[in-house]
Amino acid sequence: MITETKKILEGVKNGSISVDDALLKLKTEPYDDLGYAKVDLHRKIRQGAAEVIYGAGKTPGQITGIIDSMLKHDQKQILITRLSPDSADIIKKEYPIMYFNDASIAAIGEFPEPDGIGKVVVATGGTSDIPVAEEAALTAEFFGNEVTRLYDVGVAGLHRLLSHSKEIMNASVIIAVAGMEGALASVIGSMADCPVIAVPTSVGYGSSFNGLSALLSMLNSCASGVSVVNIDNGFGAGYLASRINHMEAKK
Amino acid sequence: MITETKKILEGVKNGSISVDDALLKLKTEPYDDLGYAKVDLHRKIRQGAAEVIYGAGKTPGQITGIIDSMLKHDQKQILITRLSPDSADIIKKEYPIMYFNDASIAAIGEFPEPDGIGKVVVATGGTSDIPVAEEAALTAEFFGNEVTRLYDVGVAGLHRLLSHSKEIMNASVIIAVAGMEGALASVIGSMADCPVIAVPTSVGYGSSFNGLSALLSMLNSCASGVSVVNIDNGFGAGYLASRINHMEAKK
Amino acid sequence: MITETKKILEGVKNGSISVDDALLKLKTEPYDDLGYAKVDLHRKIRQGAAEVIYGAGKTPGQITGIIDSMLKHDQKQILITRLSPDSADIIKKEYPIMYFNDASIAAIGEFPEPDGIGKVVVATGGTSDIPVAEEAALTAEFFGNEVTRLYDVGVAGLHRLLSHSKEIMNASVIIAVAGMEGALASVIGSMADCPVIAVPTSVGYGSSFNGLSALLSMLNSCASGVSVVNIDNGFGAGYLASRINHMEAKK
Amino acid sequence: MITETKKILEGVKNGSISVDDALLKLKTEPYDDLGYAKVDLHRKIRQGAAEVIYGAGKTPGQITGIIDSMLKHDQKQILITRLSPDSADIIKKEYPIMYFNDASIAAIGEFPEPDGIGKVVVATGGTSDIPVAEEAALTAEFFGNEVTRLYDVGVAGLHRLLSHSKEIMNASVIIAVAGMEGALASVIGSMADCPVIAVPTSVGYGSSFNGLSALLSMLNSCASGVSVVNIDNGFGAGYLASRINHMEAKK
Amino acid sequence: MITETKKILEGVKNGSISVDDALLKLKTEPYDDLGYAKVDLHRKIRQGAAEVIYGAGKTPGQITGIIDSMLKHDQKQILITRLSPDSADIIKKEYPIMYFNDASIAAIGEFPEPDGIGKVVVATGGTSDIPVAEEAALTAEFFGNEVTRLYDVGVAGLHRLLSHSKEIMNASVIIAVAGMEGALASVIGSMADCPVIAVPTSVGYGSSFNGLSALLSMLNSCASGVSVVNIDNGFGAGYLASRINHMEAKK
Amino acid sequence: MITETKKILEGVKNGSISVDDALLKLKTEPYDDLGYAKVDLHRKIRQGAAEVIYGAGKTPGQITGIIDSMLKHDQKQILITRLSPDSADIIKKEYPIMYFNDASIAAIGEFPEPDGIGKVVVATGGTSDIPVAEEAALTAEFFGNEVTRLYDVGVAGLHRLLSHSKEIMNASVIIAVAGMEGALASVIGSMADCPVIAVPTSVGYGSSFNGLSALLSMLNSCASGVSVVNIDNGFGAGYLASRINHMEAKK
Amino acid sequence: MITETKKILEGVKNGSISVDDALLKLKTEPYDDLGYAKVDLHRKIRQGAAEVIYGAGKTPGQITGIIDSMLKHDQKQILITRLSPDSADIIKKEYPIMYFNDASIAAIGEFPEPDGIGKVVVATGGTSDIPVAEEAALTAEFFGNEVTRLYDVGVAGLHRLLSHSKEIMNASVIIAVAGMEGALASVIGSMADCPVIAVPTSVGYGSSFNGLSALLSMLNSCASGVSVVNIDNGFGAGYLASRINHMEAKK
Amino acid sequence: MITETKKILEGVKNGSISVDDALLKLKTEPYDDLGYAKVDLHRKIRQGAAEVIYGAGKTPGQITGIIDSMLKHDQKQILITRLSPDSADIIKKEYPIMYFNDASIAAIGEFPEPDGIGKVVVATGGTSDIPVAEEAALTAEFFGNEVTRLYDVGVAGLHRLLSHSKEIMNASVIIAVAGMEGALASVIGSMADCPVIAVPTSVGYGSSFNGLSALLSMLNSCASGVSVVNIDNGFGAGYLASRINHMEAKK
Repeated sequence: MITETKKILEGVKNGSISVDDALLKLKTEPYDDLGYAKVDLHRKIRQGAAEVIYGAGKTPGQITGIIDSMLKHDQKQILITRLSPDSADIIKKEYPIMYFNDASIAAIGEFPEPDGIGKVVVATGGTSDIPVAEEAALTAEFFGNEVTRLYDVGVAGLHRLLSHSKEIMNASVIIAVAGMEGALASVIGSMADCPVIAVPTSVGYGSSFNGLSALLSMLNSCASGVSVVNIDNGFGAGYLASRINHMEAKK
Repeated sequence: MITETKKILEGVKNGSISVDDALLKLKTEPYDDLGYAKVDLHRKIRQGAAEVIYGAGKTPGQITGIIDSMLKHDQKQILITRLSPDSADIIKKEYPIMYFNDASIAAIGEFPEPDGIGKVVVATGGTSDIPVAEEAALTAEFFGNEVTRLYDVGVAGLHRLLSHSKEIMNASVIIAVAGMEGALASVIGSMADCPVIAVPTSVGYGSSFNGLSALLSMLNSCASGVSVVNIDNGFGAGYLASRINHMEAKK
Repeated sequence: MITETKKILEGVKNGSISVDDALLKLKTEPYDDLGYAKVDLHRKIRQGAAEVIYGAGKTPGQITGIIDSMLKHDQKQILITRLSPDSADIIKKEYPIMYFNDASIAAIGEFPEPDGIGKVVVATGGTSDIPVAEEAALTAEFFGNEVTRLYDVGVAGLHRLLSHSKEIMNASVIIAVAGMEGALASVIGSMADCPVIAVPTSVGYGSSFNGLSALLSMLNSCASGVSVVNIDNGFGAGYLASRINHMEAKK
Repeated sequence: MITETKKILEGVKNGSISVDDALLKLKTEPYDDLGYAKVDLHRKIRQGAAEVIYGAGKTPGQITGIIDSMLKHDQKQILITRLSPDSADIIKKEYPIMYFNDASIAAIGEFPEPDGIGKVVVATGGTSDIPVAEEAALTAEFFGNEVTRLYDVGVAGLHRLLSHSKEIMNASVIIAVAGMEGALASVIGSMADCPVIAVPTSVGYGSSFNGLSALLSMLNSCASGVSVVNIDNGFGAGYLASRINHMEAKK
Repeated sequence: MITETKKILEGVKNGSISVDDALLKLKTEPYDDLGYAKVDLHRKIRQGAAEVIYGAGKTPGQITGIIDSMLKHDQKQILITRLSPDSADIIKKEYPIMYFNDASIAAIGEFPEPDGIGKVVVATGGTSDIPVAEEAALTAEFFGNEVTRLYDVGVAGLHRLLSHSKEIMNASVIIAVAGMEGALASVIGSMADCPVIAVPTSVGYGSSFNGLSALLSMLNSCASGVSVVNIDNGFGAGYLASRINHMEAKK
Repeated sequence: MITETKKILEGVKNGSISVDDALLKLKTEPYDDLGYAKVDLHRKIRQGAAEVIYGAGKTPGQITGIIDSMLKHDQKQILITRLSPDSADIIKKEYPIMYFNDASIAAIGEFPEPDGIGKVVVATGGTSDIPVAEEAALTAEFFGNEVTRLYDVGVAGLHRLLSHSKEIMNASVIIAVAGMEGALASVIGSMADCPVIAVPTSVGYGSSFNGLSALLSMLNSCASGVSVVNIDNGFGAGYLASRINHMEAKK
Repeated sequence: MITETKKILEGVKNGSISVDDALLKLKTEPYDDLGYAKVDLHRKIRQGAAEVIYGAGKTPGQITGIIDSMLKHDQKQILITRLSPDSADIIKKEYPIMYFNDASIAAIGEFPEPDGIGKVVVATGGTSDIPVAEEAALTAEFFGNEVTRLYDVGVAGLHRLLSHSKEIMNASVIIAVAGMEGALASVIGSMADCPVIAVPTSVGYGSSFNGLSALLSMLNSCASGVSVVNIDNGFGAGYLASRINHMEAKK
Repeated sequence: MITETKKILEGVKNGSISVDDALLKLKTEPYDDLGYAKVDLHRKIRQGAAEVIYGAGKTPGQITGIIDSMLKHDQKQILITRLSPDSADIIKKEYPIMYFNDASIAAIGEFPEPDGIGKVVVATGGTSDIPVAEEAALTAEFFGNEVTRLYDVGVAGLHRLLSHSKEIMNASVIIAVAGMEGALASVIGSMADCPVIAVPTSVGYGSSFNGLSALLSMLNSCASGVSVVNIDNGFGAGYLASRINHMEAKK
């Protein structure tokens, strides 16, 4: 941002940009205003990579409007999360999306080759946690990470988890997805020496209170190196895992 | 109220009103008792302006009964909030209502010309907050305010908000509508020097707990000049904004 | 902010400011960095008026450091909220503060003459709510408002409130301070036609849950024109009341 | 209970009851065991009056089974609460029930003449609270009380309530039914000198949290003489009101 | 209130009261304004009986100020609740109060002879609930009720309660005071046929959450005829019990 | 587990197992990896008895996949809990399941003869608690326990419970299933001298908060010997009861 | 109870007991009424064993009164839980108590020889959980159980727990004591095949919410065979473990 | 772990380790059992680096016992968190600790040179958040990271934060520490492209509910790349930041 500002100011100084134009530029960020949405075109410029539409609470018409704006601005790789099958069917008529039922995710454009530091492991406590885990896994893959899936390795059958200790020891980042008591994050945290992203899920009943139990459990993990995202927030975990897994680019 | 009481007492003194009639008058307020509702005709007398029916939890039959009572008492401008499309369709057969789908609001009578001090800005964090924002915006317009809409300017893309700093600096009142973490209210509060009415919305999932997260966030805003209304209470925000924006009339 | 940016750019254009200096200026805001605090000197420049230190969680040494910075930058009117008597005693040795025991507030400099649109009424449900109410009242007075105090007018003795209907009808803004069930805000809201700022207090016991009961009650007020600030946030209410009461300046 | 025990013991002493029979009698209470329900026939014996079936969570078949058992044991007056229209339709085919749509209540047998001390007033804050209020009112009537209904007298239009001060001052017991902020109970409590039973309702949205706001508000009422029943528990309020209104029978 | 209004109006008609004086009278209620408190002198006029000061959150100076005002207005019987021993010691120097340590209650004036319909039974689940129970019992006695105390009869030793079934069957009103799981209210409710006032206490630890557990338990009582007051609200229960026990006066 | 490890090591020593094979064996547990589920075959080997599939959140296809894997591994007795009627219908086409509508449980294989120490008593507060109770009762029977059902014996009709004191006194383990205020657990706990497993249910409304009230009540039971499982967790209670009832096998 | 009733009835029949005496006996239970406490002497008669005083919320004077009553009634083994050191010092002057600082427990009389089925294992997640664990362990020992202590074996260092798998596999009952995320209960539950009693502790900070996190976690344990007692309820766990460990006596 | 197992097995095969010794080794992990604590010596072996003692809830004697064990096992760098000044004074007498008052942290041994990928930025919303921030910063430094502190840059004065955009854009990991509404995490998240660890603090009052407001706000952040640790958990954030900042070592 600072560099851009400097360029504008130098333009003012050398007369190539008028004061009013500069003022306008400084105020104008690269987004497309559709009225109901201000499409962020900023990240593409900065990163030249994938962009994400959060599908929940948007009509199919609003979503296609945003897709349209993105494609026009040369944004070719688009991820749409929390998209219902019905909306996907409508959008499919206009754009060539791949739709992943389990994860309620749609994608436009190719998935890139993995280019992160290492592997992202996505583990779940049970079978019912898979939709959230798939949201995380697909997001990570969409942002260029290699993903290993370890599903149904909850602590109720500790041996299932222990038998995958190799994958856990070698992971670059681990995403631990679990509902109910959410103990998976703590147990993985005690086995791993990489960052662990805990995703509480709303799987459970009664005093799980729609994921509150797992959320609190994960926040209070006695294992170090664990942090937590929102209940059922597979996307957030996958995106953060990608950031961590691409750390070396910063050096 | 005091003036009316004085008039009644003077009537008693000069004999134009009997003691029993005066007693009755003092006890009787101008409302129409429909059994299931006591229609407030008080405000009209006092303000000669728009009146509001809260549509949630009322049958179409009850609503038309109330409209009927109002129209009979010369209440020509009526706003109906939280009205489902189905109920709107039924009512439409009897009364000429305008129905705003986004906001679930119906109106009878013309919207007045804006006559407040300045502009009311209605801003939202995202696209999904628009229904609540429209409830606020339409209410403010119905009560005679000029409204500027700034939708989808949440803090995740801070530049979108900053690029509208002029509208924010010049607003008379700002209504900040946001779900999830509700940070919009704090950021707008730090930019504006007018009253900011924060409306938490139930947009979000997991630990947003149907708007609790945004509500608490807004109540704890470290920015001064911010106050909060109930979750999803667009009407309340719009109504209060109108009161503030018409302040000078009090002087 | 925009005007300042324009001035800087024009300076760049006409050569009176170098590009690097402009870049610096654009980035530099008028605050004083004390390490533990970045003292905001912005508001003074913009408003030429009173400034506020939030005393809670700061050591006397930190507070005097901030006072010192402010005085050096010509900030002569300072309000310190949530200041314990002990801290006040320590600070008193260095600076000539007035300390208000009831409100735990200290002030440096004179209170200005009231210059708002009308009167700010501060009402409380009971005697125990007075400390919060005084925080609100003193804040409003410190920012140039005339304040009327109506204490102990809770709904348990409705006639006490009704007998002050004149003050309520004539107010410019009303601050309703109440703990327990917080019904005061709704009843005042039904009597007044000006903005009502509700301040829930932590007064009560048992299921008042330290103000939660009053907070929820006020958020759900069926009276229109009511908004809410944090539990015990007298300062926030007083500050907001002042903003509303000075509205005409915006026109 | 003690008298019955004494009779049994005297029967044992004078030989008219064997030890084993006495033991059995002491253990056996007058209920009818249907497997899925143990129908209480105790109250009839003791009071010769109306009996109640809580309909929620019972199948129509279970309910008719219980009715059948009651009728066989000479229980002629039966109230069925929380009965869905669909279940009512099914039951109607076998038993001559009156069904009250508003209150989701069905009754078998005649409503008795009022024989309590005075009148039971049932007041609501709004129109949407009427179903709960009707549950209370019908229950009170079913148990022999005269009921006065004051609907839609919430504090947002205080005059509507004040204009009924006569009914409130003369009531024997008042049932105050309100959702949202539940201030009705406090205001009525401050006007009345009889017991006030507060019924919070789940009417409202957002931070009303399905009646929690009204519940807490009512529990923290600063008005004396107010007690509270469960959210939406119209039946409980009506039943308790009847007990209080029939107090003199105890003397 | 209505009668007084009528008298005033007749005074206006017959010229004995001027319009302005009448207006003043209609607005003026009998309370004494001490600034920090508006002492309600209304009830005395209406009832000629005892008056109550809620001691919590008031300084000894404020309390003696209120006592002083009351005594001046011929209010000779005063109850002060939630009074700390230290405050009691200070007040004792000026006024002849009786102080009850267990209940943190002070009284001025004689306790009257019981004149209610029947007996008020105050029962507790355990020994630790006694302070709240004594607040209830003393309040009831202060307002002219005969009180029977049944302490430590919690359901953990059901026989202790069953052995007092006679007192429970014969009571006019029962106050059930219990912390922890609060089951006492339900069990007493199933044995009694009089109104039962349940008082949850903050006795317990862990998931009793300072009385929340007992509160919820009592609100959800499956026994009919039970209503609930705030956690630890012995006074409220005693006061309400007195109202119920004096019902016949209404007839 | 230790014995198996020892066997493997001895195999290594005497050459019958290679180092790599041993390493593999130590890491490999007897489960079948279906991708979406890792079927635990461990318990069968250890106990030769029944196995359980938690049906909630699994598709019929996933469930039949797991059944298939189990049957292939000689697991002939299978319990499926929380199975919807629709899923049951689909599975029925492939496998000979018995489906229990009340309990939403399906079973494959014969129920064994009871072989525990004594009887397991399953009691409910009301009729609506029966589904949870049946889940517990069937589970206990499936694991070889004799079960006595005492339904609808809640404390509102205390005599219904007291008349079954013999069953309660003679039980080996008691499962107390109740919603609303959950007092059943405390009352049974005060009568019994065996372990009592309390199962709160989501039966109730309003402030029962979907079972929270009963849960807290049971956790705070003043009766000793009571422990609690999750809301509506009939299976957990039945399984634990079986463990306790088979204690002697450990000696 | 039934046998005693029968004896009384036979006494009535054969004339050795009068009707009035029998009535009295049936109503009288063996407790000693001290006014502030009704000392339960019932259990001694039934079990001839240890008795417990819950010390919290009782004055030293009340406690010595209860001890006195017990000793007079030949109750020689007494456990006093939740006794502060100060109270212990006062009681020590009158009675020869052993006081255990860690557990805040005092005992009168000898600890018996272990006579249960097997060993009770008491495990804690961390060092800070030891006070609660000691309350459980001492209680179990006081009631005749052999106890194995495994302290500081939380899942953060999973190997510490796994290295004690032998003790866990051989236990008769396991008490798992843990704060924070409470995962210990699930992990032990997955290793053991005996009943596991989970005790959440208030150890932790922030979102542990004084034990709520551990409580919810344990209630939602995906491991079967786990039940839960109140937060910090070491006594309850120890007492229940003893009941389970003495099961065979029931056969 | 697997490599060690393999070594042991090869030792068994070649006879250098007996079966019983191998069994023992496989079960024995490198920890020192002090009874009240099992000191983890595992990490040192694996990482040769710093070790941490969680000081809260441990007596000074227990802490010195653990230090003693560590030093004996060549663990020379020890961090002690949540250590009160009083405990620090006691420990200081035996061991040469550095004590950091602000952070309540003590350290034994030298702080290493920074060797991570880049800089860790620690930012706070206000002055009161500094203790938690210092716990994070010192932890990160203790584990070999370079730390930049940005204190008091909360969103109420947005310019203070924006003026440090350079530090934020260049950070390797950012720790955002804030109480009240916790908006800092979202705003930083929208500016940064590195992982952001949000630490809610208990700073605030009223409806901040001891950090709950900030916690929920941060969990619901609409900015991607943000994850959350427990309220006030500076250590956890610092430790995790170090793991992320040392990622490249994994490649």
